[in-house]
Amino acid sequence: MSASAHADVKKVVLAYSGGLDTSVILKWLQVEYGCEVVTFTADLGQGEELEPARAKAKLMGIPDEHIFIDDLREEFVRDFVFPMMRANARYEGDYLLGTSIARPLISKRLIEIARETGADAIAHGATGKGNDQVRFELSAYALDPNVKVIAPWREWDLTSRTALIDFAEKHQIQVPKDKRGESPFSTDANLLHTSSEGKVLEDPWEETPDYVYSRTNNPEDAPDAPEYITIDFEKGDGVALNGEAMSPATLLAALNDLGKKHGIGRLDLVENRFVGMKSRGMYETPGGEIYARAHRGIEQITLDRGAAHLKDELMPKYAELIYNGFWFAPEREMLQAAIDHSQEKVGGTVRLKLYKGNASVVGRKSANSLYSEAHVTFEDDAGAYDQADAAGFIKLNALRLRLLAQRDRG
Amino acid sequence: MSASAHADVKKVVLAYSGGLDTSVILKWLQVEYGCEVVTFTADLGQGEELEPARAKAKLMGIPDEHIFIDDLREEFVRDFVFPMMRANARYEGDYLLGTSIARPLISKRLIEIARETGADAIAHGATGKGNDQVRFELSAYALDPNVKVIAPWREWDLTSRTALIDFAEKHQIQVPKDKRGESPFSTDANLLHTSSEGKVLEDPWEETPDYVYSRTNNPEDAPDAPEYITIDFEKGDGVALNGEAMSPATLLAALNDLGKKHGIGRLDLVENRFVGMKSRGMYETPGGEIYARAHRGIEQITLDRGAAHLKDELMPKYAELIYNGFWFAPEREMLQAAIDHSQEKVGGTVRLKLYKGNASVVGRKSANSLYSEAHVTFEDDAGAYDQADAAGFIKLNALRLRLLAQRDRG
Amino acid sequence: MSASAHADVKKVVLAYSGGLDTSVILKWLQVEYGCEVVTFTADLGQGEELEPARAKAKLMGIPDEHIFIDDLREEFVRDFVFPMMRANARYEGDYLLGTSIARPLISKRLIEIARETGADAIAHGATGKGNDQVRFELSAYALDPNVKVIAPWREWDLTSRTALIDFAEKHQIQVPKDKRGESPFSTDANLLHTSSEGKVLEDPWEETPDYVYSRTNNPEDAPDAPEYITIDFEKGDGVALNGEAMSPATLLAALNDLGKKHGIGRLDLVENRFVGMKSRGMYETPGGEIYARAHRGIEQITLDRGAAHLKDELMPKYAELIYNGFWFAPEREMLQAAIDHSQEKVGGTVRLKLYKGNASVVGRKSANSLYSEAHVTFEDDAGAYDQADAAGFIKLNALRLRLLAQRDRG
Amino acid sequence: MSASAHADVKKVVLAYSGGLDTSVILKWLQVEYGCEVVTFTADLGQGEELEPARAKAKLMGIPDEHIFIDDLREEFVRDFVFPMMRANARYEGDYLLGTSIARPLISKRLIEIARETGADAIAHGATGKGNDQVRFELSAYALDPNVKVIAPWREWDLTSRTALIDFAEKHQIQVPKDKRGESPFSTDANLLHTSSEGKVLEDPWEETPDYVYSRTNNPEDAPDAPEYITIDFEKGDGVALNGEAMSPATLLAALNDLGKKHGIGRLDLVENRFVGMKSRGMYETPGGEIYARAHRGIEQITLDRGAAHLKDELMPKYAELIYNGFWFAPEREMLQAAIDHSQEKVGGTVRLKLYKGNASVVGRKSANSLYSEAHVTFEDDAGAYDQADAAGFIKLNALRLRLLAQRDRG
Repeated sequence: MSASAHADVKKVVLAYSGGLDTSVILKWLQVEYGCEVVTFTADLGQGEELEPARAKAKLMGIPDEHIFIDDLREEFVRDFVFPMMRANARYEGDYLLGTSIARPLISKRLIEIARETGADAIAHGATGKGNDQVRFELSAYALDPNVKVIAPWREWDLTSRTALIDFAEKHQIQVPKDKRGESPFSTDANLLHTSSEGKVLEDPWEETPDYVYSRTNNPEDAPDAPEYITIDFEKGDGVALNGEAMSPATLLAALNDLGKKHGIGRLDLVENRFVGMKSRGMYETPGGEIYARAHRGIEQITLDRGAAHLKDELMPKYAELIYNGFWFAPEREMLQAAIDHSQEKVGGTVRLKLYKGNASVVGRKSANSLYSEAHVTFEDDAGAYDQADAAGFIKLNALRLRLLAQRDRG
Repeated sequence: MSASAHADVKKVVLAYSGGLDTSVILKWLQVEYGCEVVTFTADLGQGEELEPARAKAKLMGIPDEHIFIDDLREEFVRDFVFPMMRANARYEGDYLLGTSIARPLISKRLIEIARETGADAIAHGATGKGNDQVRFELSAYALDPNVKVIAPWREWDLTSRTALIDFAEKHQIQVPKDKRGESPFSTDANLLHTSSEGKVLEDPWEETPDYVYSRTNNPEDAPDAPEYITIDFEKGDGVALNGEAMSPATLLAALNDLGKKHGIGRLDLVENRFVGMKSRGMYETPGGEIYARAHRGIEQITLDRGAAHLKDELMPKYAELIYNGFWFAPEREMLQAAIDHSQEKVGGTVRLKLYKGNASVVGRKSANSLYSEAHVTFEDDAGAYDQADAAGFIKLNALRLRLLAQRDRG
Repeated sequence: MSASAHADVKKVVLAYSGGLDTSVILKWLQVEYGCEVVTFTADLGQGEELEPARAKAKLMGIPDEHIFIDDLREEFVRDFVFPMMRANARYEGDYLLGTSIARPLISKRLIEIARETGADAIAHGATGKGNDQVRFELSAYALDPNVKVIAPWREWDLTSRTALIDFAEKHQIQVPKDKRGESPFSTDANLLHTSSEGKVLEDPWEETPDYVYSRTNNPEDAPDAPEYITIDFEKGDGVALNGEAMSPATLLAALNDLGKKHGIGRLDLVENRFVGMKSRGMYETPGGEIYARAHRGIEQITLDRGAAHLKDELMPKYAELIYNGFWFAPEREMLQAAIDHSQEKVGGTVRLKLYKGNASVVGRKSANSLYSEAHVTFEDDAGAYDQADAAGFIKLNALRLRLLAQRDRG
Repeated sequence: MSASAHADVKKVVLAYSGGLDTSVILKWLQVEYGCEVVTFTADLGQGEELEPARAKAKLMGIPDEHIFIDDLREEFVRDFVFPMMRANARYEGDYLLGTSIARPLISKRLIEIARETGADAIAHGATGKGNDQVRFELSAYALDPNVKVIAPWREWDLTSRTALIDFAEKHQIQVPKDKRGESPFSTDANLLHTSSEGKVLEDPWEETPDYVYSRTNNPEDAPDAPEYITIDFEKGDGVALNGEAMSPATLLAALNDLGKKHGIGRLDLVENRFVGMKSRGMYETPGGEIYARAHRGIEQITLDRGAAHLKDELMPKYAELIYNGFWFAPEREMLQAAIDHSQEKVGGTVRLKLYKGNASVVGRKSANSLYSEAHVTFEDDAGAYDQADAAGFIKLNALRLRLLAQRDRG
């Protein structure tokens, strides 16, 4: 990027964690771009103190009014996680999209803060090989087509750990002892999940070492007795645990505790990145896994077959859109409109058994149930269903196959 | 059905298990239709002795040349289960289609035997409320458009247990003591799974009683130590367990033993039947669950993203076709052609950890791997990937979103 | 149907055209069911006088308060045709669903009138071989699960023309001279289209005789000079013709006049019926064909690619649902929610050239246009688009293909 | 690109038309890259003399053995156009993909020639704003992951017409008089179509001027009498015109003559490019339009409904893949496998009427027909179809809707 391009940027909002890498980025922006930096630190439930980020920002000369620390946990679960869960979204059959779903919210706040502070650019700490850069930037451009996006990892020459630490020391950025060496893997965390990838996880034949896990007990160490819980749903969203009403983030946090205890939600996956390569990740989604199973459970008795099958057919594309960063694209919104339309009557209670890695639906009931014992019973159904109808049903479904067979198998 | 319709049938091939219900059907066909009956009893791995069926058929006057008892286990797994597993098929998100996939094979043999014996009709013991009647009959019509199908449960007046037993006794059919009362639930079994439904399972809020399970240990009673296994794949199909080459049916049987031991593959589901009602079933698919996870595991490193995502998008429709009985329909064959095309290089070894209900992929390797450590590494990648490319990639993916935003959010 | 079943019906609402067939049905219901009959005659723009239907009903003893004649033209176009057109729906690539889309509205009114008049059944004149019986009845059951549906053509023994006319004469129903012989084909008409099928059209190799057409000039007889028109759209729906604001039905009627004049909208199709057979039909959809092309034209400049492609992927299923009679099914409503979400900005003006069977979009403009001459121009684009971005875009899109090639083509 | 990068290229195969632009590219490669150039000129039926390209290449010092001129017309139609037509592919509802489908074949030959001549790079003359660069390069990388691709329009500084002509004159490249000024639009042509875009076409509200068309008569100037033709199909591909057997390219050429005469196949489209912008193009696909309609016509009577509807659902994605340049991607090949599987019995004769822009199917017949007059007839069907079956068919299809209505509309 040319010097004049740098000169264009007067003020940049940085997604700032307070950690070493984004601290280096903060300083680098000040030095290389010569611009004002606004820091934005989000509490998405990652389980870290945020106030140290404020202190560090101040140390690097950021004025109070340019330091934003927001608790986004409720918005995250209510407006991003739950809508996604309504779709039963799993990427490539398994992944609950814990990292993917957080990025658009961060970008949304970056753009809002840019508007509030009159900034003309945003910056993030994602690398040039991953999906997160795409997710951050597509969301940002969708919300502000004229924003400038600075992705230092794609621009700078601090491409080795040594160079990064040299830069930090040269600019009086404190380097924690445990950051001096190479970290054995990289993580991302929020209220929905923790992901780990890189280094020790890079050989997909090697089992993930136990020390990688931070959010779940090893199932082998989980309690020997199962635990039963209930989750209540209304209009497709969870509203209570064991009969106690809870806000979205509170509910997910409580499920995380339960999932952790019982070793639920570990996933070892080799997935296909949007940028074209395969990568191996370890995901821990303790509460999300329980919630996802419960949501399918309540849909089983309250959702019509036509709606349920359409949802299943649309889901892979919906999940791909979120994975690829297209949360704010019209086609994701269209799919959401269809999905949300189906959830009006998805309410009731699901009972689950939690035991050593398993979260199994064992019961479901609902005032909106479409399940009809009168129809399905092996007993006398008092005329609810006329078995003779099945003959005609089969005959007409078979007609085209018989015409085919007459032609082809004659 | 009129007497003249009955008179049309000279010889019928009956899917005959040797149990009370199909024995009554056998006799009823002789009495009501006045026709010759050919019995067909298939070994699909349901784990029952088949010779007693021969003896019973003889007792009812069926000559030797009209008694067919076939071991179809290898054909079942090789030509039906494995092709379906290539698609990662799960109906309504979970069900591995264990009953659905067996029906077309039975119909295929019924039609073959009808041709061999000059029969003009087939008969089955499925009820008028379920999916199996549809599956049997659609397959039969697809293979022989002129066959007559007799479904006694839709025709006769033996609609209560008492009437059935009276008929049996009147015709000297032995009624086992445990069949005198009402069975507390109904089951279907083959090498892939055992399903249970009805009676005690009809309230979807009530947890399935432990005595319903026959194919799996309760996870709580499973071994306290995990067990590691490997499965080898070639062209999308399993070929070896722990390095030992096995035929399809042998492999599935061995996985069933492992799954049973570790309590794997239980599923409590409320599903949507093709005939329009919801039903609650309990499925046990011990080996199938392990196999399905392993297959996804090997695809993770050997299948291209475009192929994998297309498979995921097609899967719900493919599973629905099998569930609804359209195995021999052109659209199922078209989807199979697409799926099989993708499996050419799906080979290698998957390592799984089995533990108290969990079957987790913990490693995978392949000579055909598309996973490139060189590309994905956090370390220096020696130029395999140019991070600057990501900027252009994002810019052009974002272009339409920016044009939208310029219009809509200006 | 047993006598007792007949006795169950006290009052039935009949979809009554006033023609011979439904007059016979009216009488037959009175005679066979011994029930009160309520007649419902809808003006859907079929171009026939409706008052004669009132007179005939009276002649058969129907009291005034049981004769319903409704002008549904605006509701038909506004709430059924236009929503369907938003989806660009064409069944099997071509058919604009003119008959299919009218049936749910008729059923809706039948059920409403049944509620108003305390009737417990409805009746229609569709035969047992066609799709219309399915459409009428699925819609009726979806709106009133307990309604009884009487389909005389599936019940009675008036299966030959002679028997029907005998019945009519026996019951003093006037038989028009031109109805004495066999009609050479059968038609259905409404504001959207006229369909013709049967008899002289039954051989799909024979060209449709010219006398079958009633709604369009032969293109060879159409004016030798083209005519240019404009249609204005707002939120996905047509609102004006040549700059003159019009209601939905008025607009469609005006387009029908234009389409008739220029010989537009003839379609000779062999289609697949829901009941399993193929049939050959001739459709004339003069205004609908023009409208459909215009709608695609305005979408071209106002709809985002992601939205447009998702609509194209969903369309075949959406069209199939309407064709099969599932207008009031949840999955149709879900798709509609997605489609409608996309139409918010679909507004502007389309210019078409009408000439001897052709309706060609030749221009489109919109205040909501996403078309950017600045981006697409071959001229200097003043930096709107950086061609260098394309290199990275291609490189990352190619990455998975290169990894595949390294494995497979090495 | 750095000098050292240039130095890496020793020999490059250039897609060379012989026109001014690719002649400038040829020289520019010699000058800037200092590498050997191999020229490849394909006859894809674009209707231009190719020998002048040889002469020009020689003039610029290319030795005979490095000049490749290939007639690819039969391969183009047989292996690219016809397989695509089997899918009834139309991009965004209308576009027959005439340019898109030619690019992978050109790339395939570029890579083959690179292998034959030991070249390490290929070059093409597509600009950085269009789809063709993507199509050329994705195909090339899919066939040779290590090839270098040179796209001069993304690299050089000859970005104005003046600069280009200055360069040409400086290097003794002849500049035709009509190339001195700006061309009023840009074209691409092959046996399937001619596309025109740019300049005078850039305002989507302005009707395309008549001088833009080169492949079709104005319908207004087409013959006043219609012409009837027949096309015979075998296994989904056209094999004869009016009963005369023809090779693929010969058939398409003959249809082009007919289409031109009758003014068939003009399309004015605003489409969405893969690179993110909308563009307006004028397509002329005279023979292709006739062929596409005929193919649908023969499918109407020979393809089962399940197969036909699956094809319709898959088509938009298939067309998008071709449009975006993914011909050699696994997912396109999977879809092709499914499509080809459906075409085994797609054979017979279609009769069309050609008249002033219209190509209408008016008849179709086949030894493989699935159309059954016995089933569909309004006359007595001799028991082929039992209308009573429809009652059961409707009842079970309605069951879920009734259960819904009982819950929701009670």
